Amino acid sequence: MDFNICLFEDFETLDVFGPVEIFGRLPEVYDLKYFSMDGGIVEGWQKTKIVTEPLAQVKPNGIFMIPGGQGTRGLIHDDTFMKQIKEIAEQSNFCITVCTGSALLAKTGLLKNRRATSNKLAFDWVKSIDTEVDWIPNARWVVDGKFYTSSGVSAGMDMSLGFVSDQFGLEKAQQIANQIEYIWNSDKHDDPFAR
Amino acid sequence: MDFNICLFEDFETLDVFGPVEIFGRLPEVYDLKYFSMDGGIVEGWQKTKIVTEPLAQVKPNGIFMIPGGQGTRGLIHDDTFMKQIKEIAEQSNFCITVCTGSALLAKTGLLKNRRATSNKLAFDWVKSIDTEVDWIPNARWVVDGKFYTSSGVSAGMDMSLGFVSDQFGLEKAQQIANQIEYIWNSDKHDDPFAR
Repeated sequence: MDFNICLFEDFETLDVFGPVEIFGRLPEVYDLKYFSMDGGIVEGWQKTKIVTEPLAQVKPNGIFMIPGGQGTRGLIHDDTFMKQIKEIAEQSNFCITVCTGSALLAKTGLLKNRRATSNKLAFDWVKSIDTEVDWIPNARWVVDGKFYTSSGVSAGMDMSLGFVSDQFGLEKAQQIANQIEYIWNSDKHDDPFAR
Repeated sequence: MDFNICLFEDFETLDVFGPVEIFGRLPEVYDLKYFSMDGGIVEGWQKTKIVTEPLAQVKPNGIFMIPGGQGTRGLIHDDTFMKQIKEIAEQSNFCITVCTGSALLAKTGLLKNRRATSNKLAFDWVKSIDTEVDWIPNARWVVDGKFYTSSGVSAGMDMSLGFVSDQFGLEKAQQIANQIEYIWNSDKHDDPFAR
């Protein structure tokens, strides 16, 4: 299954590479691919330059991963980008967001009447994008159908292990956590950073 | 101060981008730069393609960061690479390694008679690189002079926050941990993954 990562200028580093580390530990299942609106080199907020393919080349039935970061603030007003990611999200088997990536997903309208969460420090802004989403303020991550949304930055790792656990069992997720020496917060309801 | 990241083919993703997320939160102090032996595009083990400059362009008196990953296994036999990173490590104010990055640093000889640690699943191999290093099996990370060495993958984040704490105080480190919603294991002696 393709694991399609949506990059853009000023994405937040760990929003992307926490999940990449975890899904990348299952190369027999997930094929990691890096995309951006027009392809080419994209620079994150921490100045990493990544080589990407154009979003138009994402194939259906994969996992679509949308990170957060400063770049999301402008992108919600970019109709061409929003139309593109809505189409991909609709055609994907799963859609996972980290941090303010849920603001972008909410802007597509696909989260309406669904439960979701986001970064606690940006929560008011994210909520304002679509007030018809059932925003959960106290959650490390939230699952609603094919949509997985996590809280801020590092919560993306906990959610990714949660996804692996949902798909392949708790033991597999714990095995990966051990391999990467990660102290997994495995309870999605346990959010130490909620207000 | 330059924060000089040493990349190579098949580096481990989170070894790099955990510390990058944390040091990147102090842009007024640290200027993040990405290097590899010859510069150009380097592909990590999780298939991320990163744009880099040649290691020969690293300036002295910065922080030199060496990640681990599968790529380290071949590199310890690459004399040109080893000579280059030894020179940079000598000229840097601090040298920090994550996971099996300490195998590369040990191979330079600069860790002789110093305390250091590494990934617990690769510990025997790393120890074999230089038996005159005082390898600490039970440590999340180890500080000895200008050398910071961490345990596997995720431990690099705990060490990076520990470095920030050593430089700017515990409050600053905790503030960054809160910003990235990271549950910081702040005790370097507390290693849940030690045998």
